[in-house]
Amino acid sequence: MLRRNPIKIREAISRVMEFAEPTDIQYLSLLEANGYYLAEDLISDHPVPPFDRSPYDGFAVRSRDTLNASSKSPKLLKVVGSIGAGQIFSGVVGADETVRIMTGAKIPEGCDAVIMIEAVKEVDVDGEASIHVRRPIESNKNISFTGEDIEQGTTLVESGAYISPGIIALLATFGYNRVPVRKKPKVGVIVTGSELLDVDKPLEPGKIRNSNGYMVYAQTMRAGGDAVYLGKLSDDFNESFNFIASSLSEVDVLITTGGVSVGDFDFMPGILDKLGANVLFNKIGMRPGSVTTVAEKDGKLIFALSGNPSACYVGFELLARPFLTALSGAKQPYLEKTTAYLGADFLKRNPFDRFVRGNLSYNKGKFIVTPLGLDKSSVVSSLAEANALIVFPAGTKGYRKGMEVEIILLESKGISTDLFGMEEKGEGD
Amino acid sequence: MLRRNPIKIREAISRVMEFAEPTDIQYLSLLEANGYYLAEDLISDHPVPPFDRSPYDGFAVRSRDTLNASSKSPKLLKVVGSIGAGQIFSGVVGADETVRIMTGAKIPEGCDAVIMIEAVKEVDVDGEASIHVRRPIESNKNISFTGEDIEQGTTLVESGAYISPGIIALLATFGYNRVPVRKKPKVGVIVTGSELLDVDKPLEPGKIRNSNGYMVYAQTMRAGGDAVYLGKLSDDFNESFNFIASSLSEVDVLITTGGVSVGDFDFMPGILDKLGANVLFNKIGMRPGSVTTVAEKDGKLIFALSGNPSACYVGFELLARPFLTALSGAKQPYLEKTTAYLGADFLKRNPFDRFVRGNLSYNKGKFIVTPLGLDKSSVVSSLAEANALIVFPAGTKGYRKGMEVEIILLESKGISTDLFGMEEKGEGD
Repeated sequence: MLRRNPIKIREAISRVMEFAEPTDIQYLSLLEANGYYLAEDLISDHPVPPFDRSPYDGFAVRSRDTLNASSKSPKLLKVVGSIGAGQIFSGVVGADETVRIMTGAKIPEGCDAVIMIEAVKEVDVDGEASIHVRRPIESNKNISFTGEDIEQGTTLVESGAYISPGIIALLATFGYNRVPVRKKPKVGVIVTGSELLDVDKPLEPGKIRNSNGYMVYAQTMRAGGDAVYLGKLSDDFNESFNFIASSLSEVDVLITTGGVSVGDFDFMPGILDKLGANVLFNKIGMRPGSVTTVAEKDGKLIFALSGNPSACYVGFELLARPFLTALSGAKQPYLEKTTAYLGADFLKRNPFDRFVRGNLSYNKGKFIVTPLGLDKSSVVSSLAEANALIVFPAGTKGYRKGMEVEIILLESKGISTDLFGMEEKGEGD
Repeated sequence: MLRRNPIKIREAISRVMEFAEPTDIQYLSLLEANGYYLAEDLISDHPVPPFDRSPYDGFAVRSRDTLNASSKSPKLLKVVGSIGAGQIFSGVVGADETVRIMTGAKIPEGCDAVIMIEAVKEVDVDGEASIHVRRPIESNKNISFTGEDIEQGTTLVESGAYISPGIIALLATFGYNRVPVRKKPKVGVIVTGSELLDVDKPLEPGKIRNSNGYMVYAQTMRAGGDAVYLGKLSDDFNESFNFIASSLSEVDVLITTGGVSVGDFDFMPGILDKLGANVLFNKIGMRPGSVTTVAEKDGKLIFALSGNPSACYVGFELLARPFLTALSGAKQPYLEKTTAYLGADFLKRNPFDRFVRGNLSYNKGKFIVTPLGLDKSSVVSSLAEANALIVFPAGTKGYRKGMEVEIILLESKGISTDLFGMEEKGEGD
């Protein structure tokens, strides 16, 4: 009989994360890099703006020429050129001269201010384009100066950041044609259970369709992994052992569902034993998912999740998700944790840390979270609406609507708080 | 001179969304469907559980056989079979008989309860496997009944839902081998601006690297579109016109950046005019992005966004994002809107509705949002950390740290609230 020593979920996460080595660096084109994690610091290769430039459409002038301008006695300046963004004025602007300038264009030599186009009157003087300036302009007015936004050599984004469209813009600005990112970890998904039918097969007495395999595949993709669906274990132990062993050699991470309980066909403990794998834990003091097992073999992790859909889901999100996100190079691999107000009573006793699927909504800057279903761990239907897990610590009971609870956000990305499970205060203590 | 009549952002969104027709339906395999929007209701094709089954590993019994069982006088039942999940017991269980049953297996005929494996003692009586039952069990105890979770024919998820891993599990359970989803809309991205250098080119005096094109490409992908980067408009009006016209015929939606202001090389208004496009609006009473222009030609929309990075970003998120999400078949295409507490002062006057990029964090169930940068619309750097837009309505000023403000969440997905811009109460009224 297999010995099982339950540990706390925080300890389980910690044991898993010790093996979280980021994958190799690869270089992607800027069009492909969105959604990966940056593998090096993003550093400005030039100041922004790269030159003194006009923030408006207008006329570049020498401010001293406008000293005595007034509406009664407008100052006449001769337009000696016109430059659009990307163009430069090759000469030097002299006394009582001006250059028509478009937004973003470089301030011509000699000028020290820009008058907005609406503030001047364009006139024709003896066939020469000129403008009337009606009041003085200060030196340095309406100029965006070199380096005003960003100095050269500034670290703008640190390695490990999630590459959002805003970061894509920065990468483009600073010439990152090829973007250093971590490879997506290759994750093999295997299901176990002789009761499982393929999704395209008609139902048979005693059987159910395989849903965990597809769910874990999708969870892996959401976690930033590169999922490969490898199929189903057979009912033969040796065949199953060989399949697991050969699969492990082809992937970075292996995830199985089912076969970890105490049933007669639960091969996973025996397979891990025969593999000589280092079992990090095979029991967690939590519901659902208490039989979640993780083992290490040659530096690779095998996540043996429960065959129960809810337990499988929760086990993945708490353990496999931060692990895969860390492999993908994220500086902050944990799901967001915050507090919310219960939208309904949850009166059950919680002898163990309990993670209940919840539906989260926002209302006036507050989170309201409603427990889904009855938390019967066999209920598949509540998975559809789940976008958060509600944390009920061990030793608690009788939660009422309106009470504050801790929640873990399942769909968040790129919004950083502290690490899940790693805070100072304990869970269920 | 082009006439521009500014409209409110709410009205602009409404005019755009009138053209939001979902794309055609396609059928994807279950492994590919994650992240799309469901194009039909998901209906259960069978009850769940599909048969009466055991929720535990144990022994299926006839409860009346256990009526007089006690620890002093345990009842002996003969084990006449053993069934795992997916197996069925072919006979009928008779008086004082039991069947060893694994979690998920079908309750054998004749039995009406399951005793958990830990609650019995397995004994050998004259070479025959038997168990000792130490107390009576009620009829119907420890049985998951047919249809207890879900009845056949139930609508579980409505058309237009975002397909999350939980919904993937439901689709698998109910045999959706091919999943009906809307095609990703094909979106052409074109940049304008003679000052723009390709990202792999060294800097030149007066020029900057093209960042908007890559940013809008990434924003389009985040919005669920299928982006195609088409390149840069030339400085020649007729060439540019032909490029826009031919590009439009190859995509579902066209997005351009730049060329919509009043500069000498701002071709977009002229091109839209020559196309005979129906201009929905060419000025919005908001900052940044007031020159954002949207036009319709033969039922397709052209989003002519500002060339200023921040204005381009905001114009995309407020107008193009919900449009693309609606084309992808989402029932709720709008970004989440909620309230948050300001993390810093924002003292500027807001003569127009203002959308300031903000960084959002969670703290004890509350949102704290910190305005980024100085909101100088040329500042690229603040885009990196933006995960929310703060809404400062027209006619307001002097927002202080700790005050409540409306925000729009940029990274949310699948968490539903009301529609952005469509509420009863007005913005800036």
